[in-house]
Amino acid sequence: MMTRKNAFYAQSGGVTAVINASACGVIQTARAHRDKIGKVYAGRNGIIGALTEDLIDTTRESAAAIALLRSTPSGAFGSARFKLKSLEANKREYERLIEVFQAHDIGYFFYNGGGDSADTCYKVSQLSQAMGYPIQAIHVPKTVDNDLPITDCCPGFGSVAKYVAVSALEASFDVRSMAKTSTKVFVLEVMGRHAGWIAAAGGLVQDHGIPVVVLFPEIEFDQARFIARVDALVKAHGYCTVVVSEGCHYPDGKFLAEQGTRDAFGHAQLGGAAPVVADMVKQALGHKFHWAVADYLQRAARHIASRTDVKQAYELGKAAVQLALKGHNAVMPTIDRVSDAPYKYKIGMAPLAKVANVEKFMPRNFITEDGFGITERCKRYLMPLIQGEDYPKYRNGLPVYATLKNLPVARKLAPFELK
Amino acid sequence: MMTRKNAFYAQSGGVTAVINASACGVIQTARAHRDKIGKVYAGRNGIIGALTEDLIDTTRESAAAIALLRSTPSGAFGSARFKLKSLEANKREYERLIEVFQAHDIGYFFYNGGGDSADTCYKVSQLSQAMGYPIQAIHVPKTVDNDLPITDCCPGFGSVAKYVAVSALEASFDVRSMAKTSTKVFVLEVMGRHAGWIAAAGGLVQDHGIPVVVLFPEIEFDQARFIARVDALVKAHGYCTVVVSEGCHYPDGKFLAEQGTRDAFGHAQLGGAAPVVADMVKQALGHKFHWAVADYLQRAARHIASRTDVKQAYELGKAAVQLALKGHNAVMPTIDRVSDAPYKYKIGMAPLAKVANVEKFMPRNFITEDGFGITERCKRYLMPLIQGEDYPKYRNGLPVYATLKNLPVARKLAPFELK
Repeated sequence: MMTRKNAFYAQSGGVTAVINASACGVIQTARAHRDKIGKVYAGRNGIIGALTEDLIDTTRESAAAIALLRSTPSGAFGSARFKLKSLEANKREYERLIEVFQAHDIGYFFYNGGGDSADTCYKVSQLSQAMGYPIQAIHVPKTVDNDLPITDCCPGFGSVAKYVAVSALEASFDVRSMAKTSTKVFVLEVMGRHAGWIAAAGGLVQDHGIPVVVLFPEIEFDQARFIARVDALVKAHGYCTVVVSEGCHYPDGKFLAEQGTRDAFGHAQLGGAAPVVADMVKQALGHKFHWAVADYLQRAARHIASRTDVKQAYELGKAAVQLALKGHNAVMPTIDRVSDAPYKYKIGMAPLAKVANVEKFMPRNFITEDGFGITERCKRYLMPLIQGEDYPKYRNGLPVYATLKNLPVARKLAPFELK
Repeated sequence: MMTRKNAFYAQSGGVTAVINASACGVIQTARAHRDKIGKVYAGRNGIIGALTEDLIDTTRESAAAIALLRSTPSGAFGSARFKLKSLEANKREYERLIEVFQAHDIGYFFYNGGGDSADTCYKVSQLSQAMGYPIQAIHVPKTVDNDLPITDCCPGFGSVAKYVAVSALEASFDVRSMAKTSTKVFVLEVMGRHAGWIAAAGGLVQDHGIPVVVLFPEIEFDQARFIARVDALVKAHGYCTVVVSEGCHYPDGKFLAEQGTRDAFGHAQLGGAAPVVADMVKQALGHKFHWAVADYLQRAARHIASRTDVKQAYELGKAAVQLALKGHNAVMPTIDRVSDAPYKYKIGMAPLAKVANVEKFMPRNFITEDGFGITERCKRYLMPLIQGEDYPKYRNGLPVYATLKNLPVARKLAPFELK
């Protein structure tokens, strides 16, 4: 018989509209197995909460509050952009994690994040074996960038894709209305550091009669060809929409939007490709333009989340606990697509050794030959992911989102200084 | 007995999420009074359609297509940023309008726009009297800027206010999640050239526990005081949200966002206050920031329109036709607020002589004494306007929005060159 252990859950990296739905899946499923899983502790501000022994006691939250997580965007326990160094460079941090887990009788580590956290999760499982304190480390996938390998898609992506497609459609209708005397080119900047999945969603408006140019990070930016395309579309339709990924860059690797600052993971902090592109069009063709930078609005937009995405986020949280209960370790539950239309999928499982630090880019055959649009194959991939709406409840005109009590668990260890 | 005349309807200026709901109200109400109103012709691209005799025959659109306008953002017939000059400067344009109306037996002129179009509408009614061809000119209010006088609010505003409040809430939850290790200040730029109504809506998130600073066009920007406020909020809460109006400016009148270009009405074209403000914060306090510029997304966001706004937009379109049938001329139907809570209003009527070219700014007592927030009085004003959701239908993950046939009416006059 399995020993009853507590569980630790933490959110990592940029939050999404549905990462809390995964938290809801983890916590509700753990609560349904009280015989096997004791308390679920959450890391306050992600993995930092584990390192500093700043644990949140989720058992102090009501069933209603936990249920409300399913329709609450952002990270309810706080997330962190904090990448643990390699085992060689800073073994002390990994050992500290194990010490905290041991002090609080934690046997399950659920880490909800992207590629970097899959790597951390994998290392924790390795070290726990080396240190002789068993931890089942399960990664719950999350990233709007949709760039994790093996899984067909990543929770968070479907909702941002829906937001981008809906927004691009609405703004395109707007510019179409104004084009005769005013704005002829609308530029929407979307997220996606290295992979153009989010930008690709903007290409879906093409099937609604919208002349759209998509600028992917996967395709080196060629200004002359881009301007020629915009010129042709405006001549043919009177207007056009440009969806540009923040990661769009010149052949020399320089981002259109480079601001010169870098985040904690060492990634360049981007933002501002849209005004650059809009100004190019103005200079070359003289068209009046408008531009928008969606930034956090896109990944926080729970109000227009994809029902498919919310459902999968919840299911993967649930599956993570089920995999743990079955004795799995160093794995990640995945979405395995069975068919496009009708859309069918199964929940699968991937070993973290194959997930950590692998980025999945758009296949070249998802991008049209000219590099400015998406192919039918890409549409077949994307369409199921934006299906369905999952509206939050509203009170007094605004969505009802959860703010948890987030009460701390009493500390048992000496303080730990983060480097 | 009234002579049966045709009607002309045109959309003017920046479009909104609900201007088509007003069009729906005009056309459906006219169709219900076929004994008094013949055909409704729409101006292709607004008033330009009237000047160039480019009329759209709305009778060729099905009842279902017209009904779908109620949930379609943008201007279904095309709008225009085209301001007629003064009667003295270009009497020829006004005379041309009357000639076109006469040629197509048009006795009703419904003009759906903001302050500039109210002025045009008023001049047409004056000139029609002078020229001896009777036209009943009725203005249907529309502007996201909410700056028309007499009416308690303007259709289009409630929906953009809801979008801004929802977006600010969602993005604030996001930055709250990230603040420990990453972004501490999020800046959202919203529309509002001279009046801070839209920015004010961002202040509504304060009641959801969000530390927010609102920068209004009505309050001269004071960088030192602004930085001090952000500093205090980040120290107290760990993060803060800034909602900045595109019209925010320095004491010398220079916009934070000035791009140096001007639109057809001679207004400065703005955009880019958010990165300016974010950079200020970074320079002064060193905080990591993110910024978004909502631009067209905010005014096109039919997917999160306010039910109250949609209803009022429709009602004012309907009321415009009813006023015409009662014999009124040179008037605009208005929203007359009866009470805040419960929210009650009546449809009233204002003479265009008192509407044209008058801008309604935020009352000073709607803005907190320090200039960075909204008062209870302002909240009581705003809250009813964002009440209720009015979701469009979706097909394959995207909203179903109308694209009309927009078939032309045969021309009867010689061509007219626009100056």
